[in-house]
Amino acid sequence: MVDMVKASVLEGVGRLVVHDFPRPKIGDGAIVIRMELCGVCGTDIHLYGGKMMIPFPVIPGHEFVGMVEEIGDGARALEVKGQLLAEGDLITVVPGTNAFCGTCYFCRFMPQKPTYCTGRRVMGVNMTCRDPPHLLGGWSEEIYVDAKNFWVYKIPKEVPPEVAVLAEPMAVSSRAVERAYAPGVPTYRDGYGPGNSVVVQGVGPIGLLAIASAKIAGAGSIVAIDMVDDRLKMAERLGADHVIDMRSYNTSEERVEKVNRLTSGLGADVVIECAGVPAAVPEGINMVRRGGKFVEVGHYTDPGNVEINPHIICMKDMDILGCWAYPPTQFDTAIQLLKRGMETLPLEEIITHRFKVEEAAKAIETIKSRKGIKMAITS
Amino acid sequence: MVDMVKASVLEGVGRLVVHDFPRPKIGDGAIVIRMELCGVCGTDIHLYGGKMMIPFPVIPGHEFVGMVEEIGDGARALEVKGQLLAEGDLITVVPGTNAFCGTCYFCRFMPQKPTYCTGRRVMGVNMTCRDPPHLLGGWSEEIYVDAKNFWVYKIPKEVPPEVAVLAEPMAVSSRAVERAYAPGVPTYRDGYGPGNSVVVQGVGPIGLLAIASAKIAGAGSIVAIDMVDDRLKMAERLGADHVIDMRSYNTSEERVEKVNRLTSGLGADVVIECAGVPAAVPEGINMVRRGGKFVEVGHYTDPGNVEINPHIICMKDMDILGCWAYPPTQFDTAIQLLKRGMETLPLEEIITHRFKVEEAAKAIETIKSRKGIKMAITS
Amino acid sequence: MVDMVKASVLEGVGRLVVHDFPRPKIGDGAIVIRMELCGVCGTDIHLYGGKMMIPFPVIPGHEFVGMVEEIGDGARALEVKGQLLAEGDLITVVPGTNAFCGTCYFCRFMPQKPTYCTGRRVMGVNMTCRDPPHLLGGWSEEIYVDAKNFWVYKIPKEVPPEVAVLAEPMAVSSRAVERAYAPGVPTYRDGYGPGNSVVVQGVGPIGLLAIASAKIAGAGSIVAIDMVDDRLKMAERLGADHVIDMRSYNTSEERVEKVNRLTSGLGADVVIECAGVPAAVPEGINMVRRGGKFVEVGHYTDPGNVEINPHIICMKDMDILGCWAYPPTQFDTAIQLLKRGMETLPLEEIITHRFKVEEAAKAIETIKSRKGIKMAITS
Amino acid sequence: MVDMVKASVLEGVGRLVVHDFPRPKIGDGAIVIRMELCGVCGTDIHLYGGKMMIPFPVIPGHEFVGMVEEIGDGARALEVKGQLLAEGDLITVVPGTNAFCGTCYFCRFMPQKPTYCTGRRVMGVNMTCRDPPHLLGGWSEEIYVDAKNFWVYKIPKEVPPEVAVLAEPMAVSSRAVERAYAPGVPTYRDGYGPGNSVVVQGVGPIGLLAIASAKIAGAGSIVAIDMVDDRLKMAERLGADHVIDMRSYNTSEERVEKVNRLTSGLGADVVIECAGVPAAVPEGINMVRRGGKFVEVGHYTDPGNVEINPHIICMKDMDILGCWAYPPTQFDTAIQLLKRGMETLPLEEIITHRFKVEEAAKAIETIKSRKGIKMAITS
Repeated sequence: MVDMVKASVLEGVGRLVVHDFPRPKIGDGAIVIRMELCGVCGTDIHLYGGKMMIPFPVIPGHEFVGMVEEIGDGARALEVKGQLLAEGDLITVVPGTNAFCGTCYFCRFMPQKPTYCTGRRVMGVNMTCRDPPHLLGGWSEEIYVDAKNFWVYKIPKEVPPEVAVLAEPMAVSSRAVERAYAPGVPTYRDGYGPGNSVVVQGVGPIGLLAIASAKIAGAGSIVAIDMVDDRLKMAERLGADHVIDMRSYNTSEERVEKVNRLTSGLGADVVIECAGVPAAVPEGINMVRRGGKFVEVGHYTDPGNVEINPHIICMKDMDILGCWAYPPTQFDTAIQLLKRGMETLPLEEIITHRFKVEEAAKAIETIKSRKGIKMAITS
Repeated sequence: MVDMVKASVLEGVGRLVVHDFPRPKIGDGAIVIRMELCGVCGTDIHLYGGKMMIPFPVIPGHEFVGMVEEIGDGARALEVKGQLLAEGDLITVVPGTNAFCGTCYFCRFMPQKPTYCTGRRVMGVNMTCRDPPHLLGGWSEEIYVDAKNFWVYKIPKEVPPEVAVLAEPMAVSSRAVERAYAPGVPTYRDGYGPGNSVVVQGVGPIGLLAIASAKIAGAGSIVAIDMVDDRLKMAERLGADHVIDMRSYNTSEERVEKVNRLTSGLGADVVIECAGVPAAVPEGINMVRRGGKFVEVGHYTDPGNVEINPHIICMKDMDILGCWAYPPTQFDTAIQLLKRGMETLPLEEIITHRFKVEEAAKAIETIKSRKGIKMAITS
Repeated sequence: MVDMVKASVLEGVGRLVVHDFPRPKIGDGAIVIRMELCGVCGTDIHLYGGKMMIPFPVIPGHEFVGMVEEIGDGARALEVKGQLLAEGDLITVVPGTNAFCGTCYFCRFMPQKPTYCTGRRVMGVNMTCRDPPHLLGGWSEEIYVDAKNFWVYKIPKEVPPEVAVLAEPMAVSSRAVERAYAPGVPTYRDGYGPGNSVVVQGVGPIGLLAIASAKIAGAGSIVAIDMVDDRLKMAERLGADHVIDMRSYNTSEERVEKVNRLTSGLGADVVIECAGVPAAVPEGINMVRRGGKFVEVGHYTDPGNVEINPHIICMKDMDILGCWAYPPTQFDTAIQLLKRGMETLPLEEIITHRFKVEEAAKAIETIKSRKGIKMAITS
Repeated sequence: MVDMVKASVLEGVGRLVVHDFPRPKIGDGAIVIRMELCGVCGTDIHLYGGKMMIPFPVIPGHEFVGMVEEIGDGARALEVKGQLLAEGDLITVVPGTNAFCGTCYFCRFMPQKPTYCTGRRVMGVNMTCRDPPHLLGGWSEEIYVDAKNFWVYKIPKEVPPEVAVLAEPMAVSSRAVERAYAPGVPTYRDGYGPGNSVVVQGVGPIGLLAIASAKIAGAGSIVAIDMVDDRLKMAERLGADHVIDMRSYNTSEERVEKVNRLTSGLGADVVIECAGVPAAVPEGINMVRRGGKFVEVGHYTDPGNVEINPHIICMKDMDILGCWAYPPTQFDTAIQLLKRGMETLPLEEIITHRFKVEEAAKAIETIKSRKGIKMAITS
């Protein structure tokens, strides 16, 4: 146990500096985590680039996994699934507060809907490190968690940190696949069911984990679309039966035509948009079969408008389903899927680069250069 | 019973002429109907205007109700709900063929999905009157129905012809409301449920019947948007709690703001687009609350593209649900709703103008002049 | 405003006595209600009869409506739908605590599922009146509500107290109907949809409100089964198209046969068991059509086992759906339905007898004698 | 190609004899199949034992796979998914007629619901072999298929006959798992979702394939209950994480308690009853968690009544879901699941014993002795 804790702090737009913080005193319902790994996410890039309003200074990092180093007595019984927590347990934490404001329409009426409340605080995103306990983000040797307001999950013993660190993005991706389940009775073929065809547009980390989710959930033909070699190769290893390389199929028409050929001329049962590029939306709509589903999970931020044709949506009798974040329960699904997936898929290879806490800026540079699959910070 | 039957025939684009046809000989599985009323629909206008490819000459009219005048023995037991048919019964007919091609993916895998098959024939739309039995459309004193390939519904005794004639558009409108039910458990507030708020954009006949459907199904606050006095008045009589007159609220922002005020600042649970105007789509998306549903039923034809913002769809975690026609079973729902609705709503006033078979061209003119609510042809 | 508040207190099994309590001091997040009406429910009879373990003494009454008499500043903004509360507002309260324990599996994973948590406290049921603020049940001139832990709904101005008092049982009944919606797409005919046939077994208050819920939600043929004249008559006035009087149809076979005749030989789309008698379960299963739904809401307590035939459940491909209480959000649906229902149904006649707080024992006697429909306590 | 075809014929209850039939002349829309493998099913035992009324003589066998030996031109384009059929293709056939009567309520209103129509004919079950083309069951060297009325599926090249022969029971089992999806949005935890716990009571062939279906669909903890060594071992190899041997846990209480321990004290999310024993029903109901699902697929025939407690169903707010057969589309799901499953599960080991057409009686004896897992007839 150290007296001073090193963390990477975002002091303002584009200003990432290393700080030493005093080790916080543990509260009754709190946990101090020895950070093992913390993923670097597109959101971190947006924070760094100033695309989101946040209360600087902030320690970034909301996808962290680590060992319980110190735990208040009141926190021992707060593990989500009812397991008693002890020092040395590997845990992860849902970065968004549980109850949010608790009194708005969405908190009251849709508690299982992800984060509709505008009042929520998210570790590693909009919680400042100015005041004690300071350590409220993942790019830090240690992390301070208020277990009364944030859900703590114990990681099953079969799942090592390099897979457990994917729980948060897997929650995003698996919910995107779940969105396509609605209204749910696979028999009617208008919701996702085992054996259905799934196209994923854009196979960065979220797209790759969508492919893995679909594979673990028994999808039929799985198709990945991207233009980066490493990603396309990893997509195949995680379950894609076919890849469409945008460098070979370089018009939208060719890609739509290719999906048609891969789906007996029908179009895909489900298309999941993970590219975050507006043009992917009308292209994906064109790839869906009549009565199929298009899931929009890629536009977490706003890169602008795109033209669509309402007649196609009407005529295809199709669904376009927005997918924003996840409920805190989704971590349970994510962890189960990771555990299952490890039996057959190389999930441990998704983290391709690791950087020490003090090298966080280098991680951001590496992402921008589009090298590798996913970066992580390590203590 | 007459020897010659008068019908209005569309011989080519914009050429509507009156013909006399010989009374057809009845087949074993067929019915000859004495037409009582046949609605004039937007599709008829499209046929007349040459916006759809059809095998001229055609007798238009697919929303008809009439009395059984002659019936083949093989047709007596073919009423959909199992009632025996006899001369004098008031019936209506699903204009689209039942089984369609019967072997394509959609016919096999999604038999309850409306009309995905491209091989279907529709009475009054794409069935020529060139050859016997000629009388395959509703703008005719008599109509010849092949009861083996088209579903025949007997009208309950409580429902008079001027309400029964609404069965077809009510099938369209009630399915639009049903689309919003998915995934269905009202408890979760992300599908339609009694007490939910419903906005209908555009209250021509389809929009008006959507309002009536919502009202009969127990909706909470119902809002109609239009700019024609007669329609707005009728909307209120059919169940709208509020109307937004686009002449007073003449920008999209004002209308969205008004819906917000009518829904405690949340946005509507369900928005149903019945205007068929591309600009209504982004406006409607802006009117939906987070987690709400936007049903796209108005763009039956293609008036072009519109700009939308994918980030809003993603962030609102909302559904955009295309809604194309209806399964033949929907007529049952429609007839039940009409019967129920008559208990409290003035459904019999929706048909505001009647024209004899030989005056069909005048009906088209009247529609184009935006007078009245709905026109019908009568024998 | 009085200094002493009269309440009816259940001191032990079968011991109901009148007490005067000192008026409690208002807390910051609390409300003191001037009770207008409080329904008497089967649960109250069970409490009185000793069938449930509770911490005597208790003031019974969990279905209450009343005016805000005094309100802490912290409670003014706590109305569920976001309306500001002021003295004189007519309100009702969800009697079960909102968050329950907050940390068990059910509180975390199924927050919208009714009351799975075993740790909840319910006003008028298991909260003792021994200590201040004492007034934690509805059979009292005034009621003390902790608005931070109990949901408070403001009643719309259109709804008078004698209808608003039905919010709690309407929440039970409307959820029973909603259970039959699942999986929800009416098009497939295997969930409830407008136009469907609904049979209600047993039309005490819960059954009657199930009939009203079905009627307001656009059900087709509605059938009520009971053996008490007043109930059968009220069932017809609240929407039943047919009644089956068990004194005329006095065997199970005759009643099943009658339902068959009323549903074209198919059986009912939905059967809702509100009788609470074990024998109603196999009878109701026999009344459901293939692929239909049987909702079990009547067995709130345990009157014992009954024989069923698993082959029938398998062969009918049917659903048997347990329905236990409701989520706190259901009050919103209930209030909306009551408001809508008032437009056409005599909901204000359901309360047939009123008793002063000090006459509560007489209300219990009256219920036991099966006179009238529903009793209420009034201040 | 032979002139005479050997088949095993059930001439009456318990009378199975070998016959030679003349090779039938091929019809335009027909296919003659060279039978490769035909599973022996519990239904065959029921036919043999006289528990079902059938028009003797019948060639049993409805789970067959074989090569196209001869095909009428009109049948070449009738493969369900649109693939052209040619001599030598490996195919399987949905044994129940496609459209059934075509005019009853169920055929019209619920075409995707399995076999509610009472008018259907099933190859190998209720189609006599008295008249040409005779070969209407699977225990025959060749099989005559009317491809206009029965759905023909081409088997993917990755799937060998010993796995493809499981398509029919896999349709039963996979639909049982699908029943638990409703109402479908896994987020709400009240329908099946990846990561959920699944208990299967009875792991004969249907139970084993339910385990495989759950495994392929991404289930979390999977538990098998049985008392036969071979079955329990195979269950583990097909995906069961835990087995409960009824010889060790020999009371219902012990088994329920064991399931509780395996599910953190909650009970299972889904229990699938594949034992066909009435006592399994209340036991399974006791194993389900609050809000969970119990699927009843085992009671295909009627072994009598059982006592249940309606209060438990009500209080658990649970679903009991009957599951009868499958729609013809389910074969597509089944074949996809078999193909996916082969990647990781030893599906080819489920057929443990093979018998020549003329040894069919021996297959029946072997099943009755409870040896092995599943028997097949081979040509």
